[in-house]
Amino acid sequence: MSPVFTAVETFDVRFPTSDEFHGSDAMHPDPDYSAAYVILRTDAPGGESGHGYAFTLGRGNEVQTAAIKSLAPLVVERSVEATFADMGAFSRKLMSDGQLRWLGPDKGVAQMAVAAIVNAAWDLYARRLGKPLWKVLADMSPEQIVSLVDFHYLTDAITPDEALALLREKEATKPQRELEIIRSGYPAYTTSAGWLGYSDDVIRARLQNAVEEGWTHAKLKVGRSLEEDVRRCRIARDVLGPNRKLMLDANQRWSVQEAIDNMKVLAQFDPLWIEEPTHPDDLLGHQAIARAIAPIGVAVGEHIPNRIVFKQLLQSKVIAFCQIDACRSGGVSDVVATLLLAAKFGTPVCPHAGGVGLCEAVQHFSIFDYIAVSGSAENRLLEYVDHLHEHFVDPVFVNGARYAVPIKPGFSTECYSDTLAQYEYPSGAAWQRQRAGPL
Amino acid sequence: MSPVFTAVETFDVRFPTSDEFHGSDAMHPDPDYSAAYVILRTDAPGGESGHGYAFTLGRGNEVQTAAIKSLAPLVVERSVEATFADMGAFSRKLMSDGQLRWLGPDKGVAQMAVAAIVNAAWDLYARRLGKPLWKVLADMSPEQIVSLVDFHYLTDAITPDEALALLREKEATKPQRELEIIRSGYPAYTTSAGWLGYSDDVIRARLQNAVEEGWTHAKLKVGRSLEEDVRRCRIARDVLGPNRKLMLDANQRWSVQEAIDNMKVLAQFDPLWIEEPTHPDDLLGHQAIARAIAPIGVAVGEHIPNRIVFKQLLQSKVIAFCQIDACRSGGVSDVVATLLLAAKFGTPVCPHAGGVGLCEAVQHFSIFDYIAVSGSAENRLLEYVDHLHEHFVDPVFVNGARYAVPIKPGFSTECYSDTLAQYEYPSGAAWQRQRAGPL
Repeated sequence: MSPVFTAVETFDVRFPTSDEFHGSDAMHPDPDYSAAYVILRTDAPGGESGHGYAFTLGRGNEVQTAAIKSLAPLVVERSVEATFADMGAFSRKLMSDGQLRWLGPDKGVAQMAVAAIVNAAWDLYARRLGKPLWKVLADMSPEQIVSLVDFHYLTDAITPDEALALLREKEATKPQRELEIIRSGYPAYTTSAGWLGYSDDVIRARLQNAVEEGWTHAKLKVGRSLEEDVRRCRIARDVLGPNRKLMLDANQRWSVQEAIDNMKVLAQFDPLWIEEPTHPDDLLGHQAIARAIAPIGVAVGEHIPNRIVFKQLLQSKVIAFCQIDACRSGGVSDVVATLLLAAKFGTPVCPHAGGVGLCEAVQHFSIFDYIAVSGSAENRLLEYVDHLHEHFVDPVFVNGARYAVPIKPGFSTECYSDTLAQYEYPSGAAWQRQRAGPL
Repeated sequence: MSPVFTAVETFDVRFPTSDEFHGSDAMHPDPDYSAAYVILRTDAPGGESGHGYAFTLGRGNEVQTAAIKSLAPLVVERSVEATFADMGAFSRKLMSDGQLRWLGPDKGVAQMAVAAIVNAAWDLYARRLGKPLWKVLADMSPEQIVSLVDFHYLTDAITPDEALALLREKEATKPQRELEIIRSGYPAYTTSAGWLGYSDDVIRARLQNAVEEGWTHAKLKVGRSLEEDVRRCRIARDVLGPNRKLMLDANQRWSVQEAIDNMKVLAQFDPLWIEEPTHPDDLLGHQAIARAIAPIGVAVGEHIPNRIVFKQLLQSKVIAFCQIDACRSGGVSDVVATLLLAAKFGTPVCPHAGGVGLCEAVQHFSIFDYIAVSGSAENRLLEYVDHLHEHFVDPVFVNGARYAVPIKPGFSTECYSDTLAQYEYPSGAAWQRQRAGPL
């Protein structure tokens, strides 16, 4: 008997991060970073399983967990080998159920649920092959990579043949880039210094610390008031000096005109990009902002739900930096689609990370992109946030402002079972303590 | 003590409509029309309560129900009077929770949950005032109407002042239009004849029946294959004759180029509009299609999640018909925003209906739009589908291809409690029978 998937096991895992304003921004003042975590069980000998998750901010994580469970009938009893033989088909199947599709389509809770399961399947597949995910992808032929992607709604921007040509062009030089990136690591920037809930003193101290650690790029949250933004940017520029890069992130706080007006003022601090200046659904708004504030680039992605919206942001040149997210759009296949689109339109990919396990997952995509898709690290940076890594079996390792290339088999998405038990909401010990209040 | 909301009671209600392909289309071959139904309970004397729902296609209705429950902490214990005094604030509160917002933002399951609760509150508010919802809205001053809307992300297309001016222009003539629409009813079109799962014979018979009933506009599902589409359109045009209007609905089936190519062929049947020619998130794709197939109009809306996406579709003139939906975007306040945008850009509103209770709810918006916002019924039609109305306490009444104006207090959104019990999934008697199989 060929092994089958036997269960989609879910965990509502939450971390009380709101205690100290880690992760606070203009729209999310008190997030409790959470994971709707999934273990894809199989009856393969040795109890092989895959791990994935959707990232949320706390309340509503139970809805996300329910959405993952709702996909179980499409997964359970399915042959593991048949799934691995056509991962593109697996992803398409989860996204195109004639009843479930109404819940999105391809967006929000439903789409993040697809991503969690698709990513868990890729984690298992990579373990099976004994390679980290980035290497599984990088070792695929152009034809195999193209087979992962659902091109149906993309052909006005990129055809399978164009994608093939683009990948083939990079084929011969893959081994060299692979060795290079393993040796040097992938360049990163830090967001840990600039959360909105931090006081000026905390920001200054954290940025100074970041500079000492060798960071050359740092991101600051803005959007509470222009006056505060100016004050905080001045501190940042003061500590960073004229040559290190400063990125700003408004987390959707502004209207289109506010974004333009505020960025004209904040331009004095020479920011590399403004991230999420307005509502993520406002393509035309971002277009107007991008035109008005050039050469400052617009960066979005953490709230872009699928390859179809990325297609438009890229084909219209609205974004200067493409911030893929490992858990927001439909997982590996949707992200690969976006990497191909970004390469075609020459837009650098700078993934969104942080959260719970987003750094762990998304590093695989940047490394794959460098080796096999864009073939370039120019203007490309991985976001880094320094919390919650201790809960992961194969945590990211960042040194000298670079991500070390992960070498263990899988997608780096596995949490310690102890973490799952401790932080399960509301029954875990961490939440029982929280409820009991301070000692 | 002023009354408060005491509970957000939810019901997972599903109807086995897939049995006979009612509702089948190119992307949804076997829907079981369902409602994540909510009763907003209060401790007001007499046990006053409000009714609302999200519409889904069956599987996943439990996720939608969980999402509605997740909003309960923002509602329970809240003063009913304070809520009614500022319904705009209530809606904004539900949409802007710093943790829950991540699940959308403003889209998918999370947004439909907001709509269900907002609409239930409006149902209760209208009952309290002893008026049908359309009249509650139509009797509001321009200032009150504008206060319902969150203009934050809209000001590049419409400002509160512009909205006020637009509403004031219609003030003096409101009473006349109100009397007129009560007397004549609101014009409608039928979708009941053209579901994709119906055979040619069924389509012909149903269309003939529709013509005999006085329908002048009918919609046909397309998108399975061009050959089939041509054959079905030929039947439709044959039965409808040259003067009645034919609308087509591809339910997102096509890529951008397929939509253009197929509509160039189907243009011979003189369709009024093509609905959802491609993925609903593809603004630029719809723009390309609209340009290529003019004067055939593009119609979308049933999958547009919020006022921000509608803003772009309207300001860029991509859509010729604006298909608001009562349950997909954020409920009354989001729909009022879209009506104002549509009026500003001169685009007729032709709501999406059908489903479970969508006709019942959305009729109120078209009537309000006619009386107080656009002031016009030109090129405007309400969709009508003739099933599941028997489950509603105040069902729509359509005669001579016109909706009779509802006169009972409320939003027409209340289902019989017997229906909730019979069709609750999976425990209700209807599903127990289903499980037992044919007799």
